[in-house]
Amino acid sequence: MIIDCHGHYTTEPKDLLRWRKEQVEHVKEPAKQPSKASLKVSDDEIRESLEGAQLKLQRERGTDVTIFSPRAMGMSHHIGDYNVSLAWSQVCNEMIHRVCTLYPDNFVGVCQLPQSPGVSPDSCIGELERCVKEFGFVGCNLNPDPSGGHWTAPPLTDRWWYKFYEKMVELDVPAMVHVSASCNPAFHGTGAHYINADTTAFMQLIMGDLFKDFPTLKLIIPHGGGAVPFHWGRYRGLALNNKRPPLDEMMKDNVWFDTCVYHQPGIDLLTKVVPIDNILFASEMVGAVRGKDPQTGQDFDDTKRYVDHAPGLSAASAAPRSRSDASALSCRPRSSASFERAPTSR
Amino acid sequence: MIIDCHGHYTTEPKDLLRWRKEQVEHVKEPAKQPSKASLKVSDDEIRESLEGAQLKLQRERGTDVTIFSPRAMGMSHHIGDYNVSLAWSQVCNEMIHRVCTLYPDNFVGVCQLPQSPGVSPDSCIGELERCVKEFGFVGCNLNPDPSGGHWTAPPLTDRWWYKFYEKMVELDVPAMVHVSASCNPAFHGTGAHYINADTTAFMQLIMGDLFKDFPTLKLIIPHGGGAVPFHWGRYRGLALNNKRPPLDEMMKDNVWFDTCVYHQPGIDLLTKVVPIDNILFASEMVGAVRGKDPQTGQDFDDTKRYVDHAPGLSAASAAPRSRSDASALSCRPRSSASFERAPTSR
Repeated sequence: MIIDCHGHYTTEPKDLLRWRKEQVEHVKEPAKQPSKASLKVSDDEIRESLEGAQLKLQRERGTDVTIFSPRAMGMSHHIGDYNVSLAWSQVCNEMIHRVCTLYPDNFVGVCQLPQSPGVSPDSCIGELERCVKEFGFVGCNLNPDPSGGHWTAPPLTDRWWYKFYEKMVELDVPAMVHVSASCNPAFHGTGAHYINADTTAFMQLIMGDLFKDFPTLKLIIPHGGGAVPFHWGRYRGLALNNKRPPLDEMMKDNVWFDTCVYHQPGIDLLTKVVPIDNILFASEMVGAVRGKDPQTGQDFDDTKRYVDHAPGLSAASAAPRSRSDASALSCRPRSSASFERAPTSR
Repeated sequence: MIIDCHGHYTTEPKDLLRWRKEQVEHVKEPAKQPSKASLKVSDDEIRESLEGAQLKLQRERGTDVTIFSPRAMGMSHHIGDYNVSLAWSQVCNEMIHRVCTLYPDNFVGVCQLPQSPGVSPDSCIGELERCVKEFGFVGCNLNPDPSGGHWTAPPLTDRWWYKFYEKMVELDVPAMVHVSASCNPAFHGTGAHYINADTTAFMQLIMGDLFKDFPTLKLIIPHGGGAVPFHWGRYRGLALNNKRPPLDEMMKDNVWFDTCVYHQPGIDLLTKVVPIDNILFASEMVGAVRGKDPQTGQDFDDTKRYVDHAPGLSAASAAPRSRSDASALSCRPRSSASFERAPTSR
């Protein structure tokens, strides 16, 4: 079974976008904001939004299940206050729940959190619990910078986040550390803010003692870990210089990088330097980079091809794996991370 | 001749640090700030600070010249106002000038700029001109985020920077795009802020039309270009999706990455995906990561070893190059970038 651990609903039905637009227009007038009931999306519209996109690509590329969450850019926690964020998160998560109910073999839910700049992450516990307990979601996307590029939140290792982590541990669900849109003109969203956030989060984890306090907390850093694998020597050296544990020791049962790296040499490097048990297969399709790479004639985000061709990986994963190298990657973390729950429970 | 294009004076004499400490202590009391004349550093102290460090490493590693600038962390443009930044920059640049005068065969100067958050970069023209015309410096370090991790400055492609670029072009000197210390708790300095800035700057250049307006402007993005080479497919795809020129076309005569990447697989990737003419040899010694890599027994920042062993590079640079692969790298840009001036003029 090949599980793609990183997919967003980027082909969402039009009325969801209409709803959000209306909410944002009245962001400071609570009475004028749209009600949940005003959202009109039929099951057929949901099917239509997926059949020609994610489902088609799953079939074509030979992957089985996508861990599916609301559009990352869309979270935009910097817009409005906590109540705005909560209503929007609930609507988005309920949409993901409908997707997973319509296609239980293809999608497993991960929730958006109602984060808001300056508001304690404790305020996200309720929505996490609802999504996991009522909808069977298997994780959440945790935004380390709800301000959208101003980076006003404390590092992920700060006690600011601890009560939320306690709930994650209790529910046994991982978080993908994933920022949203940038409202800072310095940072392009998918080209700078996303990748910077991955790098930033990893460095916070190097310098902190988070996993001493939460030995079973599980964090996934997307986009191949940002800049980290390319600068693996730098980070190994910084850990040493700062008398911190070696990177593989720090990551071991707690940190995974995904394979959203859109060219062969990048995946080769990733799978060469990062412990293979700490890599999760993912494509982020249909996501940040669309269309075909003119150098290969294949979709940029068809990461299964790169993983299948990564030389180090083939050798390392030859024996007990089932279908392919991508399968080997996505299976391994299932045995340790909570991602295993969903596909088996459905 | 092997030119290391990225070295900072990180072993500066004690009295320089004393001077700065005193300046920062009285940052809001101009009258109490130390005078330039109060700085007491002898030539012997300068020699001593270099002989056991940068000069020893040049000899041991077989590099010839280091393009040398004040400590990057030390610039801290976020401390105090423009006048504080100007006085500190002048003191630092004069110290670099003394280094280059004492060791004209080993060091070539690059200046710190008196940037200050919210202050127009026009205010840096005077110090750039002084350093280039009076001291023979060959470039400057340009901080894309003088706020120290709050990213309040417009993108590098904004007209905000244009008058300064005009002066760079007139003087025919390149800038290394290099941030300083982070005063944002979210960002570790060398582990997050530096690398994020490189990634951020490159994405700004992708989205802007800077080199249409300044066809001869030359920018060096340090630390191997941040996350860019690892995500080369992502950036190629983003350029395509945004109808921007291909990366190699955009970089061609205007953008270089250095080789401050501290492990072999990273240098292998860098030299494989980025056009070889757009890579400058550099080590940033004595810099961000100190000490030996326990996996190799060699210094993390001895990048010449990695470059010498990069497989793609050896083949590509076999014929007309002089001494080694590092030499091949550092020579090529000399023919186009202004870095060629200094070694030949001394």
